[in-house]
Amino acid sequence: MRVEVVGIGAGDPDDITVRAVSVLGRADVVFLLDKADAAGELMALREDLAARYAPQARVVRGADPDRDRVSPGYTAAVDDWRARRADVCAEMLGELGEGETGAFLVWGDPSLYDSVIAVLEDVRSRGACFELGVVPGISSISALAARHRTTLNQVGGAVQITTGRRLAQGWPDGAEDVVVMLDARCAFLNFPDAEIRWGAYVGMPGEILIAGRVSEVGADIQRARERAREANGWIMDSYLMRKPAR
Amino acid sequence: MRVEVVGIGAGDPDDITVRAVSVLGRADVVFLLDKADAAGELMALREDLAARYAPQARVVRGADPDRDRVSPGYTAAVDDWRARRADVCAEMLGELGEGETGAFLVWGDPSLYDSVIAVLEDVRSRGACFELGVVPGISSISALAARHRTTLNQVGGAVQITTGRRLAQGWPDGAEDVVVMLDARCAFLNFPDAEIRWGAYVGMPGEILIAGRVSEVGADIQRARERAREANGWIMDSYLMRKPAR
Repeated sequence: MRVEVVGIGAGDPDDITVRAVSVLGRADVVFLLDKADAAGELMALREDLAARYAPQARVVRGADPDRDRVSPGYTAAVDDWRARRADVCAEMLGELGEGETGAFLVWGDPSLYDSVIAVLEDVRSRGACFELGVVPGISSISALAARHRTTLNQVGGAVQITTGRRLAQGWPDGAEDVVVMLDARCAFLNFPDAEIRWGAYVGMPGEILIAGRVSEVGADIQRARERAREANGWIMDSYLMRKPAR
Repeated sequence: MRVEVVGIGAGDPDDITVRAVSVLGRADVVFLLDKADAAGELMALREDLAARYAPQARVVRGADPDRDRVSPGYTAAVDDWRARRADVCAEMLGELGEGETGAFLVWGDPSLYDSVIAVLEDVRSRGACFELGVVPGISSISALAARHRTTLNQVGGAVQITTGRRLAQGWPDGAEDVVVMLDARCAFLNFPDAEIRWGAYVGMPGEILIAGRVSEVGADIQRARERAREANGWIMDSYLMRKPAR
């Protein structure tokens, strides 16, 4: 048995790689792991990709257990969530026959802010026996930088990829640029002099891009974000921010 | 006129995206910017990609000027190098006719440790008139993580993408993981307790992968790196390192 974790890009179906297309074309089973409250639009996009590139495959769906986000014991909550997720994945893998190959479809790149690889390693550490492969994908940050026609780092510089929760504690030392992936609370507003390049639904029909100095566009981003989230019922956004020049 | 900066992935030809294939298939001109001392193997790989996906296009080559790496005025040297590079690119763009589309082929992802986007903006700021598009690619760090079947960040954590020169000054604050792109001096040896996942020629026939605790595999990596660089005349390597657990 073989399991491939396949990055399918950040939203634009054309961001898929030739290798991902070829792996999907040979897969016996496609695994879709979805949150109970996942946006219907995102689920439909992934089902479309599966139907287009793996029409021969059986589709096995799993319900991704909720993470207890408000727990004070953050690490313990993550461990518990991973264990429950491993239960779900182990059950899904039961649908894979001897000698077959299954493919988990993952948004963006499996190496950034996605836990399918770790969960499959957990399943393996419990004794399940399968080969594991990873097919890299276009991450949402590469897609964001491309749409803004900019780079993530400056010449010889460093960039930190982090969360809104972390950024709220201050600008990370040693990095001229930050990329923020999960920030419901708009931590960028703490840095009025920085240059921000923000994007939501990047590569999808509803794409929104806003760029400028935080003091000038920060409030616009906050409003656009809130309006879009209300209109669509969900939002997927990220941003790149450059340190103010001294 | 339109210019597309096309990420072609980190070395494996199958890492190219469906969008990159489609852009190359419509290009009138393919631009290849190479350093005078560029490895013949790398140049040949890129020529192969151009011949395979853009057989209809004219190929225009440019000699990438050398950067004065030893200059004490680092930023000034970079500015001078960018200006000379802009001269070269402006001349290459002269080969593009009215209404035509040209494509610059860039290794990995154009947003990470590549300066073609910045140089084309320089050319534009001198008055050249063309539309600019960017096609994201699989970065060498996504490819590295995939080959090691790991993630760049841990759950809710931060990762800093940096250079060996920066890392030699100490582990960056606030990041549990670091990714290092350019490190001829093996700065990882300063962190014997960290876990390292190193790769050279990732996705290419000569791929080498080494993983483990720096105190156990650091010297192996240093030796493997030196041997490979001597044997091939060039090396392209990077690594991911996790902070030692406290």
